[in-house]
Amino acid sequence: MIANKNYVIRLSNYRNALKRFKKLGFIRVFSDNLADAVGVSSSQVRKDFSLFGITGNKKGGYQVDELTKKIDSLLGKDRVQSVVLVGAGKIGKALINYKAFEPEGIRIVAAFDIDEKEINRKTPIPVLPLDDLEVYIKKNKIEIGIIAVPENVAQSVMDTMIEAGIKGVLNFAPIHLRGNDDTVINNANLRLELENVIYFVNALGKTKRKR
Amino acid sequence: MIANKNYVIRLSNYRNALKRFKKLGFIRVFSDNLADAVGVSSSQVRKDFSLFGITGNKKGGYQVDELTKKIDSLLGKDRVQSVVLVGAGKIGKALINYKAFEPEGIRIVAAFDIDEKEINRKTPIPVLPLDDLEVYIKKNKIEIGIIAVPENVAQSVMDTMIEAGIKGVLNFAPIHLRGNDDTVINNANLRLELENVIYFVNALGKTKRKR
Repeated sequence: MIANKNYVIRLSNYRNALKRFKKLGFIRVFSDNLADAVGVSSSQVRKDFSLFGITGNKKGGYQVDELTKKIDSLLGKDRVQSVVLVGAGKIGKALINYKAFEPEGIRIVAAFDIDEKEINRKTPIPVLPLDDLEVYIKKNKIEIGIIAVPENVAQSVMDTMIEAGIKGVLNFAPIHLRGNDDTVINNANLRLELENVIYFVNALGKTKRKR
Repeated sequence: MIANKNYVIRLSNYRNALKRFKKLGFIRVFSDNLADAVGVSSSQVRKDFSLFGITGNKKGGYQVDELTKKIDSLLGKDRVQSVVLVGAGKIGKALINYKAFEPEGIRIVAAFDIDEKEINRKTPIPVLPLDDLEVYIKKNKIEIGIIAVPENVAQSVMDTMIEAGIKGVLNFAPIHLRGNDDTVINNANLRLELENVIYFVNALGKTKRKR
């Protein structure tokens, strides 16, 4: 299963908007409030919420606290999410040091690498031998994994993860990984992110030349 | 301007499909062929192409070579795209060593850092002092930039880039940067990528428990 990002981006935006409304003392919000804050239509807001069984009403709108709680639960914010990382190379090290995970309740609990020189059990996030991955995932019931290994070994790491019980994978290897219907894969394609910028610069440039 | 990714992802998928059709000896393809290959509807294919003035016809379809050329031009594949990178920390180093840019005609021509220890003019991709950024961009007419600096300095780097003539920015700092109407910004939010996986794992898990 390949995850569609737009829905989660909107949920995350609704969540931030709700936090701001809460600070302003709001008890209830209407779909129009959220629509304006997030920049979508109010029918989109209602559609998104009805997908997971939240219905407001015309008079009362949505309860800010209740809505926040439901979104938190969906986004996994109501508990700490433990994540394993495979690959302690440059991208892996960048992720280990990434400051924006912990405040949002995401914790990389261990990293794994095949290179003995990278193994270090004494760092805050220990780097363990790749051979220990399967046992570690099973023992600690980890559901989320990050792959940051070279592309030629990415699929085999993925297979090990799924075998051990991982349910969702964020993949940084420049290869499109496939799993099974029970596994969520998000291929974070850094090249595509950059191509995206290049395309829009070209498209904007062309529009201007036309004028 | 915040770039919508779906369109570029489809263009990139069409391009890969066209390469495969070309290898199989196809001279022309129909919107149905591309739709099947990419997994969208054929009306979506026609809509996407008509956006940039490519029209097929019911009998003749699209010329594979002509279509490829137009998409290449839109995605900037008909020339080498020179990119500057600001921030030679962990994410920056990962990008400098990222193998998937060069084969697609994307070249990081120089990196910049404020830390003197990181400066190195002798590496294949030189790391230069941040003070040189503006002059370098202007002199070499660079249009695309990557920001991989801590969030507290990201906006000032962005401002310098725009001032110097950068038209598109891929931002890895965990902050939502804003530019102006002439600048494309793609905020590559690594946390959101991971939250996306977590959300879908939760959603799948909940679906199963319901059954």
